[in-house]
Amino acid sequence: MLNIDRPTLLVDEAKCRTNIQFMATKVKEKGIGLRPHFKTHQSIEIGRWFRDYGIDRIAVSSVPMAEYFAQDGWNDITIAFPFVLQQASSINKLAEKIKLQLTVSSITNAKHLTERVSENVGVFVEIDTGQGRSGIDYRNTHEITQTIEIISLKKNLRFCGFLSHAGQTYNHKPNEVIDIHSKAKESVLFLKNLYAEEFPDITVSYGDTPSSVLCEDFEGIDELRPGNFVFFDMQQASNGVCRTNGIASALACPVVNIYFEKSCAIIWGGAVHLSKDFYTQLNGIKSFGAICKLNNDLTWSEPIEGLYLESVSQEHGVIRADDPSALSALREGELIAVLPAHICLAVSCMREIRILNNGTVKCLGFYKS
Amino acid sequence: MLNIDRPTLLVDEAKCRTNIQFMATKVKEKGIGLRPHFKTHQSIEIGRWFRDYGIDRIAVSSVPMAEYFAQDGWNDITIAFPFVLQQASSINKLAEKIKLQLTVSSITNAKHLTERVSENVGVFVEIDTGQGRSGIDYRNTHEITQTIEIISLKKNLRFCGFLSHAGQTYNHKPNEVIDIHSKAKESVLFLKNLYAEEFPDITVSYGDTPSSVLCEDFEGIDELRPGNFVFFDMQQASNGVCRTNGIASALACPVVNIYFEKSCAIIWGGAVHLSKDFYTQLNGIKSFGAICKLNNDLTWSEPIEGLYLESVSQEHGVIRADDPSALSALREGELIAVLPAHICLAVSCMREIRILNNGTVKCLGFYKS
Repeated sequence: MLNIDRPTLLVDEAKCRTNIQFMATKVKEKGIGLRPHFKTHQSIEIGRWFRDYGIDRIAVSSVPMAEYFAQDGWNDITIAFPFVLQQASSINKLAEKIKLQLTVSSITNAKHLTERVSENVGVFVEIDTGQGRSGIDYRNTHEITQTIEIISLKKNLRFCGFLSHAGQTYNHKPNEVIDIHSKAKESVLFLKNLYAEEFPDITVSYGDTPSSVLCEDFEGIDELRPGNFVFFDMQQASNGVCRTNGIASALACPVVNIYFEKSCAIIWGGAVHLSKDFYTQLNGIKSFGAICKLNNDLTWSEPIEGLYLESVSQEHGVIRADDPSALSALREGELIAVLPAHICLAVSCMREIRILNNGTVKCLGFYKS
Repeated sequence: MLNIDRPTLLVDEAKCRTNIQFMATKVKEKGIGLRPHFKTHQSIEIGRWFRDYGIDRIAVSSVPMAEYFAQDGWNDITIAFPFVLQQASSINKLAEKIKLQLTVSSITNAKHLTERVSENVGVFVEIDTGQGRSGIDYRNTHEITQTIEIISLKKNLRFCGFLSHAGQTYNHKPNEVIDIHSKAKESVLFLKNLYAEEFPDITVSYGDTPSSVLCEDFEGIDELRPGNFVFFDMQQASNGVCRTNGIASALACPVVNIYFEKSCAIIWGGAVHLSKDFYTQLNGIKSFGAICKLNNDLTWSEPIEGLYLESVSQEHGVIRADDPSALSALREGELIAVLPAHICLAVSCMREIRILNNGTVKCLGFYKS
């Protein structure tokens, strides 16, 4: 089977392009911009597919990742992660070449940026709209104002607007996502309006995959910044954000043992390949991946009923069968496909992808920080 | 601070050598062999340190990892993972060069091996002594006998004995580890005795870091095969297997935001650097790492009281403070050190280590599957 001798990450190009097209079309219809987050695929080659759908600007999560994509001609990049002062000289070099936007997420963070970044860059103020991670709380207008003032004092810095990631939409059902999105959007639009007189042209950059896929009301938002949708994964599928047949990436793994008496099977495919994130199945049981048949052309089936990836250790994955008879779908020595719980982390673990396109397979390496 | 501009994995050579020496001395005193599992450090350079303590044989978890260490002159290697038939031709090539032992973990697995491995290799039968992962249940002597017979029929295969990993010792307190070890050891020694007449020279290869460190009774065991002890980590420390000052590896991370009002801080250091494993603190709360001060010479302090790594997303880590005042130990823009929950996975994520030795720092890359 096409020289697969170890756990191997596969990408179905057609499914992936369908996902990109869906999002590109949706934002166009809404009249807003799309700045896809490239931290999910981390690949120059897959990045190029986005250009076919009119995408000319991207988000990344680190300066080295921005440098990687800038090499391939991306010249409008937002680093959607708080300014890291140790990266200042790399930022200054990169900003000489491309249109670069940075993010500040606290007053001190903004001060550090003004002291160290000498080139012309745009600066977003990151707003915490409920995730509780980085960003200034949207209600803390005192600090937000101070942060904007610190940025505005420097001629080389352009205050771009507000950036927010409503990551609290993850692990919620569709109707809950709509509610969470509505509140998060209101919070950031409250700020946009508050500063509208002084800064009439600011941008609100917003978005996570669940709300970008499931929600319809983006009025006032200027650009969406989802990442995961390019591949989707079982976390998204289990929450109703995508269907399992829309998942564009799977890990091919050798089945090494089947134990009917223990009602489990062992695969070569563990935490070093998939990371250690999980999703919750309908029955409330955690799973680290869904188990599919791998076809000879390296496409894969829908998940096999009654099997799931119960645990992962370093190199082992343990497939649990609800009933031992479900194991008869597997054969020792054959390859199966695992739909990862969280594809962003699996990509980062694997750092090499094989792309399937009409029966051809192409191997590519990618970003390595 | 010595050019650290991003999350960087540090290894304290002195602490690491202390850990190696402890284990080498212990097994020598017990009169048994040590075959350290190199999946934890995955580095040729760190592997060489073991030679200073008389180690001449190792365990690894895959054929590519065996090839990597064979390059550096290791010529007695056990692959402590079930035979993967897709790796057969690589195995045959490697077995021409070194003394290689493989593992079979089911009857079918053994059949596949006999059909595909033509070179002279040793073969261990993996026994499940209670972990419930790979290996034939120790009570299933019918299948164990069949498996041994399948191996014994082939002239190029030498039945070596029984291999077991009592991974069920993980996440238990020391007194529980001693009980679990005692039962697991009895199970595998029951088999050794059962087949002693027919195979008087077989080896029992056994061991995991918790039991290898905490237990004293290894009578009947021929070699220990722990891996994690070379670095240790917070999973081991939280279970009383090591002290935090014995942990030999830490991730240096930039602190990017401190939020007193949210009682948290944000670091650049997430699941792509640490993976997503956790340990349980004394108070029952999960943590993805302990937070230490990083000194100018890149050594680190003991964990700071009242702070812990509450969550990791792709690039972000969220440090939670039990009380906001504990955050005053941190400074935005400075580097801190995180003691990982599970070092084997952090090493696999990072794939590059900086070694500290008396104030000098050396960078090395390492195994990449």
